[in-house]
Amino acid sequence: MKVSMDETNNTITKRSSSQYWKSFYSFVDKVKRCPGLLRRTLWKVGKDDPRKVVHSLKVGLALTLVSLLYLMEPLYKGIGKNAVVAVMTVVVVMEFTVGGTLCKGLNRGFGTLLAGSLAFFIEYLADVPGQVFRAVFIGAAVFLLAGAAATYVRFIPYIKKNYDYGVMIFLLTFNLITVSSYRVDNVLSMAKDRISTICIGSGLCLVMSLLVFPNWSGEDLHKSTISKLEGLANSIEVSVMEYFYDSEKQANEDDSSEDLIYKCYEAVLDSKSKDETLALQANWEPRYSRSCHRIPWQQYAKIGAALRHFSYTVVALHGCLQSEIQTPRSIRDLYKDSCIKLAQQVSKVLRVMANSIKKKHQFSLEKLSNNLNEALQDLDNALKSQPQLLLGSMKGQSRTPITPKTPKTPNFYMFDEETRISLSSIKSDCCSPVGSKSKEGQGHKKVLRPQLSKSKTMSMITSLEFSEALPFAAFTSLLVEMVAKLDHVMDKVEELGRMSHFREFIDDDENIVVTCERQKMNTTENDLPSYAE
Amino acid sequence: MKVSMDETNNTITKRSSSQYWKSFYSFVDKVKRCPGLLRRTLWKVGKDDPRKVVHSLKVGLALTLVSLLYLMEPLYKGIGKNAVVAVMTVVVVMEFTVGGTLCKGLNRGFGTLLAGSLAFFIEYLADVPGQVFRAVFIGAAVFLLAGAAATYVRFIPYIKKNYDYGVMIFLLTFNLITVSSYRVDNVLSMAKDRISTICIGSGLCLVMSLLVFPNWSGEDLHKSTISKLEGLANSIEVSVMEYFYDSEKQANEDDSSEDLIYKCYEAVLDSKSKDETLALQANWEPRYSRSCHRIPWQQYAKIGAALRHFSYTVVALHGCLQSEIQTPRSIRDLYKDSCIKLAQQVSKVLRVMANSIKKKHQFSLEKLSNNLNEALQDLDNALKSQPQLLLGSMKGQSRTPITPKTPKTPNFYMFDEETRISLSSIKSDCCSPVGSKSKEGQGHKKVLRPQLSKSKTMSMITSLEFSEALPFAAFTSLLVEMVAKLDHVMDKVEELGRMSHFREFIDDDENIVVTCERQKMNTTENDLPSYAE
Repeated sequence: MKVSMDETNNTITKRSSSQYWKSFYSFVDKVKRCPGLLRRTLWKVGKDDPRKVVHSLKVGLALTLVSLLYLMEPLYKGIGKNAVVAVMTVVVVMEFTVGGTLCKGLNRGFGTLLAGSLAFFIEYLADVPGQVFRAVFIGAAVFLLAGAAATYVRFIPYIKKNYDYGVMIFLLTFNLITVSSYRVDNVLSMAKDRISTICIGSGLCLVMSLLVFPNWSGEDLHKSTISKLEGLANSIEVSVMEYFYDSEKQANEDDSSEDLIYKCYEAVLDSKSKDETLALQANWEPRYSRSCHRIPWQQYAKIGAALRHFSYTVVALHGCLQSEIQTPRSIRDLYKDSCIKLAQQVSKVLRVMANSIKKKHQFSLEKLSNNLNEALQDLDNALKSQPQLLLGSMKGQSRTPITPKTPKTPNFYMFDEETRISLSSIKSDCCSPVGSKSKEGQGHKKVLRPQLSKSKTMSMITSLEFSEALPFAAFTSLLVEMVAKLDHVMDKVEELGRMSHFREFIDDDENIVVTCERQKMNTTENDLPSYAE
Repeated sequence: MKVSMDETNNTITKRSSSQYWKSFYSFVDKVKRCPGLLRRTLWKVGKDDPRKVVHSLKVGLALTLVSLLYLMEPLYKGIGKNAVVAVMTVVVVMEFTVGGTLCKGLNRGFGTLLAGSLAFFIEYLADVPGQVFRAVFIGAAVFLLAGAAATYVRFIPYIKKNYDYGVMIFLLTFNLITVSSYRVDNVLSMAKDRISTICIGSGLCLVMSLLVFPNWSGEDLHKSTISKLEGLANSIEVSVMEYFYDSEKQANEDDSSEDLIYKCYEAVLDSKSKDETLALQANWEPRYSRSCHRIPWQQYAKIGAALRHFSYTVVALHGCLQSEIQTPRSIRDLYKDSCIKLAQQVSKVLRVMANSIKKKHQFSLEKLSNNLNEALQDLDNALKSQPQLLLGSMKGQSRTPITPKTPKTPNFYMFDEETRISLSSIKSDCCSPVGSKSKEGQGHKKVLRPQLSKSKTMSMITSLEFSEALPFAAFTSLLVEMVAKLDHVMDKVEELGRMSHFREFIDDDENIVVTCERQKMNTTENDLPSYAE
């Protein structure tokens, strides 16, 4: 018994020691691979966005310049030891984009000024005999004003969003000056030095940001909005193509197109915080559109929100592709052309909007609506022309369309009439029941409505067997819902055009077609830098 | 002519002056209302989350304590002027949660240490005769090491996520020490002072964070995951109820329930950045579950991601409610009970999972699956029992179910058999084609599959007219897809249970029922603080 236990123990020890060595070797292996990984990562960061390399050099240059305050004799004589505050300011304030730098720089400046003035007021009040009393007074001021009040104010959402850094700097400076005033005699000159060095640091940062290869948050937001529109257009097109042609492709190829669809809409779904940060920073940037109007960056964020809601439908559509229970190919083929046409029209509208934002001209809502209507009508006709499909037997077995036994009875028309009336008020704010709806620009929008409702009504007359139609009905229903949500996006883009005074629409058909072709290749640019998060 | 032009001008002037006054009055009005608004906002912030008030007082206390270094004679003698660095550290490091404070404090500490050592190494190298040469050497070091290299490293996503603040502090300290070394003789003592004061500041922050009313990021993440699960459960239940009972309610009441649905899923949709921040911070927190295992906070973030994908289906389901084209009530009523039952089962599963996370015990996958299966079977039976619904004429007209003309032919069974085989491999990773799928825990999951596919197949035998079935088919299809996506969430929650060693499942039926009832009232707690963003 004992021997066997010893053996077991031995085995365990051996096993654990071999495991130990195994894990040790894998660790060594990891360490060995580390430099290679680091090199690749560093290379990738620079390759994906060369502006990051430029920015790093800019920061290095700014720091070296500000260090000259310390290193060069004449400058040091003027400023003295406080030069370190300037160095600190450069490190803290210098951000990747102009908007970020401006936001931080101005927050730092105003926070310091405000804190300085308040600190002097407090010092004036505390200027009484008695060291202990002064200490207590200063302690109370620090506790109440700087600590509790300022920290609490930082929780207010509006302050947190816009002036968080400013309040923090206020807290910092107020504390430094108030506390120092207890020991140092000429606090005034100390504060003046501090403010002047902060100004030097901030000024240098602003000059470097604004004048040397500036990166504008607004431009990033502009470009990311365009690429999101184009990405969604691609996503929809590929999804629908895949739905109708999937089995004709290789499994491997399938995966890559799946990835493409996923990547395109994922970029939109996850864009909330990035969009909002960029819009906030862009608001600080002194950029103006034609005729000196401020560019409404918040409207870009609103377009982003509308696009996110639009993309939920794209996700659901993509879900139809991935469900294993599919409507048989023979049935799908009957409606293939019209479904693809509708999807292509939706994609085209998205691309036209992208182009409109890119070229800064308005787009023709009527024309787009007409095309969409035509596509809806086509789908409608296709559904009407094959109204009754009997349940076939097995997958892959060919099905022949059968004419309906009870074509149009007067009842249908009654139903049609009634529904059309009730449909004239399709809710367009379906994607944001809480958000308030802007009342302008509703005139144009109505162009789409009657056709949309008509088409939906028409499709009511057609009849497919529920059995096999279930997944296809969901697919069609989502396609039609997509058109309804697209309407909301069109509203927002049109509003943007009006707010930023885009050029009037010029009927330049070639322009649009060319853009459609060209932008198909741009999808890989979708991975924007994540610096803004 | 001239007179009339003058008149016009006068009118314009009058109008513009009246407009001027109007805008002036509205401005004055705004200013007058400002204090009230501020008071209400301040009150609301504190009322929504009283921990914020406590945190403000904590910061105030910490600042007062650190100010004592300056104000009290014996302490000041020991530390001297460098006490300001301690004050600065407290201002910068003190965060709302323990995780945030630890992350910043440790980053600050290690950043300073690393920068200090490197700076001394550089100083050692630069210790050559010749002021100019030294200045150039220091300038080059600042440019290359601190500026360019450190800034570039901050762009690496992994560093940015975890150690951004540390690298910034490295940059700051390195610059300060290197540059100062040019003028100050005993840099060593300066650096030592700096490090010791930073340690004092960070230590004070940690003590205040950890010991005085600590706020744990992990707890927030835990609670928000629970409330998201419960919110979605409510959202689904209310959506389905609304779909079948909407016209029986008042318009006003409708709006509020719309708001409830929207608010519940919106909280899930927008949770990405918050979840990730909380999970990151929680990783820094020294908290352990039973039997000293680290709590897998990243798994909570994964549950959040799965829930977001689940909620896209909820959004689409909600879209069915808002579309004006609806399947007539008489048809809907036929399937009302089974649809509501399925939705309630889905809600129940979500609540059971919430409860499982809350009470830290595992849940019985089999039991839940059985209930879900039963509900799916019910829906299936309902669809089978009313297989053919002829197109009625007008909304509201009563429809009588008609028995199918061609009931079950042998063909159906063949179809059924074949589909069932092909369906045995439903893709469960439908919601994340890119994400890698964990291979464990697939054993249990299969319980759901056969039933799900069977039910879908069964529903193929039923037949509804396509016309009116289109929206209802989409609704049903989405309900079934929801069950498939729920599977993915269940996987993740089960994985969490395994990873954090939850207690084994105890068959405590009452417990679950009670929780269902109680948690219905908790929906308004959903608005978590936004401090973490």
